[in-house]
Amino acid sequence: MATSESQIDIDETVNRLASKRGVESVIVMTKDGRVIRTTGETERSELHGKLLSKLARDAAEIVEELESSDELSFLRIRTTKHEIMVALDHSYLLVVIQAPQLSD
Amino acid sequence: MATSESQIDIDETVNRLASKRGVESVIVMTKDGRVIRTTGETERSELHGKLLSKLARDAAEIVEELESSDELSFLRIRTTKHEIMVALDHSYLLVVIQAPQLSD
Repeated sequence: MATSESQIDIDETVNRLASKRGVESVIVMTKDGRVIRTTGETERSELHGKLLSKLARDAAEIVEELESSDELSFLRIRTTKHEIMVALDHSYLLVVIQAPQLSD
Repeated sequence: MATSESQIDIDETVNRLASKRGVESVIVMTKDGRVIRTTGETERSELHGKLLSKLARDAAEIVEELESSDELSFLRIRTTKHEIMVALDHSYLLVVIQAPQLSD
């Protein structure tokens, strides 16, 4: 099967992000949490997919409930040990898990 | 009733944050969403309290499910129209709603 341009784009984006300092893993998933690409361990990424896609859906609902013309675009979850960033587009979620940044 | 030092601290923090450029409202709430201080409209702040405290609880559960020794400290929700920041401590949530920052 030929590799489509969009597949190359996804792979390039994932690899670029994964090479950044402090990045632990990069996961691309569907909006319902199915993992499409990951640089992390499969089972762990599937758990991230399940939990983070649910949280993103809940957050998107809240944003719409607060203002029907508004839309969720990005979610950042900071914990004691990690920073989880979830970027949303129409079909996919791009998740980056990294060590917490000291700068903010 | 005398004003306690902690009340002064809360008021100072809220006023300081509310005076920053782009900040639309600052809300201090209990972990179950009861509004303690707000610079916003009461009914709207109560809706924020209800929805954001629920989202913070869900996010905290997810963080613990991913790693039992980890803990949620901060949640940032970026939408097309706003940026909502939720800082957690042991008893309270501090919520800042602001215009989206162009810098990131």
